[in-house]
Amino acid sequence: MSGAGKPIGVGRLIGVGTGPGDPELLTVKAVRALGEAEVVAYFAKAGRSGNGRAVVEGLIRPGTQELPLYYPVTTEIDKDDEAYKRQITDFYNSSAEVVAEHLQAGRTVAILSEGDPLFYGSYMHLHVRLAGRFPVEVIPGITAMSGCWSLAGLPLVQGDDVLSVLPGTMGEGELQRRLADTEAAVIMKVGRNLPKIRRALAAAGRLGAAVYVERGTMKNAAMIPLSDKPDDAAPYFSLVLVPGWKGRPAQNDSVREVRA
Amino acid sequence: MSGAGKPIGVGRLIGVGTGPGDPELLTVKAVRALGEAEVVAYFAKAGRSGNGRAVVEGLIRPGTQELPLYYPVTTEIDKDDEAYKRQITDFYNSSAEVVAEHLQAGRTVAILSEGDPLFYGSYMHLHVRLAGRFPVEVIPGITAMSGCWSLAGLPLVQGDDVLSVLPGTMGEGELQRRLADTEAAVIMKVGRNLPKIRRALAAAGRLGAAVYVERGTMKNAAMIPLSDKPDDAAPYFSLVLVPGWKGRPAQNDSVREVRA
Repeated sequence: MSGAGKPIGVGRLIGVGTGPGDPELLTVKAVRALGEAEVVAYFAKAGRSGNGRAVVEGLIRPGTQELPLYYPVTTEIDKDDEAYKRQITDFYNSSAEVVAEHLQAGRTVAILSEGDPLFYGSYMHLHVRLAGRFPVEVIPGITAMSGCWSLAGLPLVQGDDVLSVLPGTMGEGELQRRLADTEAAVIMKVGRNLPKIRRALAAAGRLGAAVYVERGTMKNAAMIPLSDKPDDAAPYFSLVLVPGWKGRPAQNDSVREVRA
Repeated sequence: MSGAGKPIGVGRLIGVGTGPGDPELLTVKAVRALGEAEVVAYFAKAGRSGNGRAVVEGLIRPGTQELPLYYPVTTEIDKDDEAYKRQITDFYNSSAEVVAEHLQAGRTVAILSEGDPLFYGSYMHLHVRLAGRFPVEVIPGITAMSGCWSLAGLPLVQGDDVLSVLPGTMGEGELQRRLADTEAAVIMKVGRNLPKIRRALAAAGRLGAAVYVERGTMKNAAMIPLSDKPDDAAPYFSLVLVPGWKGRPAQNDSVREVRA
């Protein structure tokens, strides 16, 4: 069991990175932690079990207590509204307290985190609330962006390249400025921002090299040079990759459209 | 064995990310690929077996052919010198041909790559030379930077944060400009650049939050707030992390000096 070395009477919190979606892309350490956990917690939308949970199916022992943490239903409220911010903060506070009760009872609690826990992960909201009070371990995971460039076989950065990870939500001028000021870029949160991202890439002279990737390492992954993509339909979690390594030798293949 | 689905008579190339140094941080897929490979290749300095090889000790089947690719000894030549560039290009070309011979003979060749293969990895030099000629798969790995922020328990980026990955080799003014223009940063290739990095962080108003991490997830890892580090001694592969997430709730612990 998992108790070796932990203080008597206090449980251990483990933030477990579940990677980009393929269960084989969990680390050996993550698989071991899930098999040893007494409680497995995860964020999910009401009525759903969440992607992180789906990825670890079969890795949790029978009888392990599952603790879904359901986001409050906030469809009627604007996300910049103070009422929304208060509601979501209350939710993270109360979720942390539910987890804290298990830890106080001496249980090992694994919290699932898609991708890498401390890299844009929702786990971070529990981490900052619990890390000072209980023993915590964070097991890193493969990021969605790494799953994407690996699947695309796209060398991203080499040598002294600067890499900029940019949210597609930023203003067009700002996006253009940053794309012109970096060797390589990953643009996240694409979704309905794709037309703007396309214009910013073109203005920065980087559209030709950009690759659009959908559903990273999922079974139905798709990728295509952005300049070949005929429409602007894109799910929120799609990515655009702009590779660096300017001086690389000519590669006698290139990214083609792939629909696995 | 590994041959299922591969064209008869042609081998398969697999770029295997071996992660930041802890064998448990390999992915399940990487472990499986290493157990199935007929040839395991890796770059190493003459007379050494390399970190990537050490991490996979015990994961390679007895009898598997090992193919160390020894860098040419170039201590007498400046790295910006044309003679050096020619020598290293010749080395990558001839290494690719040695691997190609195994692939042409129908063997599955796994090439070890510390961290993530397409993220500043030496594997990329073989990838671009072989990807058009043979079936290639890239198995992503946990990056050194992710190993470091996970070990430090340091939330790095959240929400719409921009992350900049910067080489410590860049000029001081340029480094300062970029540090003042990003929510979060990872500074790589620290080594003898640490005094300059410290000055650039101070000038950008970011020194207070910066964390110095040495030997990521190795057994003898060490981390310390950079402003508390009393000296400028740093190995080449140490990192400086500058966390984002400006609006995060107060965390009731903080990074302390750790020497595992």
